[in-house]
Amino acid sequence: MTRDELMRAAIELSVQNVANGGGPFGAVIARDGEIIATGVNRVTAEHDPTAHAEVSAIRAAARKLGTFDLSGCEIYTSCEPCPMCLGAIYWARLDRMFYGNDKNDAASAGFDDAFIYRELELEPGKRRLPSERLLPDEAARAFDDWMKKEDRIEY
Amino acid sequence: MTRDELMRAAIELSVQNVANGGGPFGAVIARDGEIIATGVNRVTAEHDPTAHAEVSAIRAAARKLGTFDLSGCEIYTSCEPCPMCLGAIYWARLDRMFYGNDKNDAASAGFDDAFIYRELELEPGKRRLPSERLLPDEAARAFDDWMKKEDRIEY
Repeated sequence: MTRDELMRAAIELSVQNVANGGGPFGAVIARDGEIIATGVNRVTAEHDPTAHAEVSAIRAAARKLGTFDLSGCEIYTSCEPCPMCLGAIYWARLDRMFYGNDKNDAASAGFDDAFIYRELELEPGKRRLPSERLLPDEAARAFDDWMKKEDRIEY
Repeated sequence: MTRDELMRAAIELSVQNVANGGGPFGAVIARDGEIIATGVNRVTAEHDPTAHAEVSAIRAAARKLGTFDLSGCEIYTSCEPCPMCLGAIYWARLDRMFYGNDKNDAASAGFDDAFIYRELELEPGKRRLPSERLLPDEAARAFDDWMKKEDRIEY
């Protein structure tokens, strides 16, 4: 499939998902022009705040390929990703991203990812989310154990 | 349970998870001092690049409470969250965050979340992840349908 065809598949998923009671978002993971997996936004339908289209597609593709490393794959998403999904795209090591709507379009439709982008740029103490550090000396233990573990899988 | 006890539970999960072949991360979602759900990092064990402790705990708590809105709950995480997890914390509308290790500790143990934080601050064209916009006119259709839908659940 061409890039336009793969994007059209993501768009079609987003349109169908609105009809099915989900949010207006769809995504496709492809490798060498073939669809590996797809995802749609099921936040309200499945009571899962992380079930955005991109996260869902990444989970499905990783499950299908049996690896957390999606190098060699590309993502086609009907809308520019929020920080959660963009973070997931980096962790999944996808090669490239294509998007249809941009974040301004999303904001016009009531999805204000920009707020979260702004919050992430702030130091923890300046964010609207209150946060506090607790028991750092005790928390260090897991990292100590990790560094001592000879068969750890780095990622 | 007190805040220290809840943090200690998250730390204990992180330590156990290393012993169980997972990454050195654990998280607890609590409400009124009671644990609602827990999560550990299962990225390599379950071939899921999104299975960080915080995302796993949020998904489990939302499933248990039957809602995507975790207002009234707090998260205790053994380590300061990466951008994906922090995004998930905002989407889940958690009231407050407590963390043990900070991002410098994480970097020392080989988990460089800072790279993703820096990337998110850049305009798409300046990121190391190549990206391109495709078919915006066609992509707009899902948002048009969404705005016309009278029974849409806003979030």
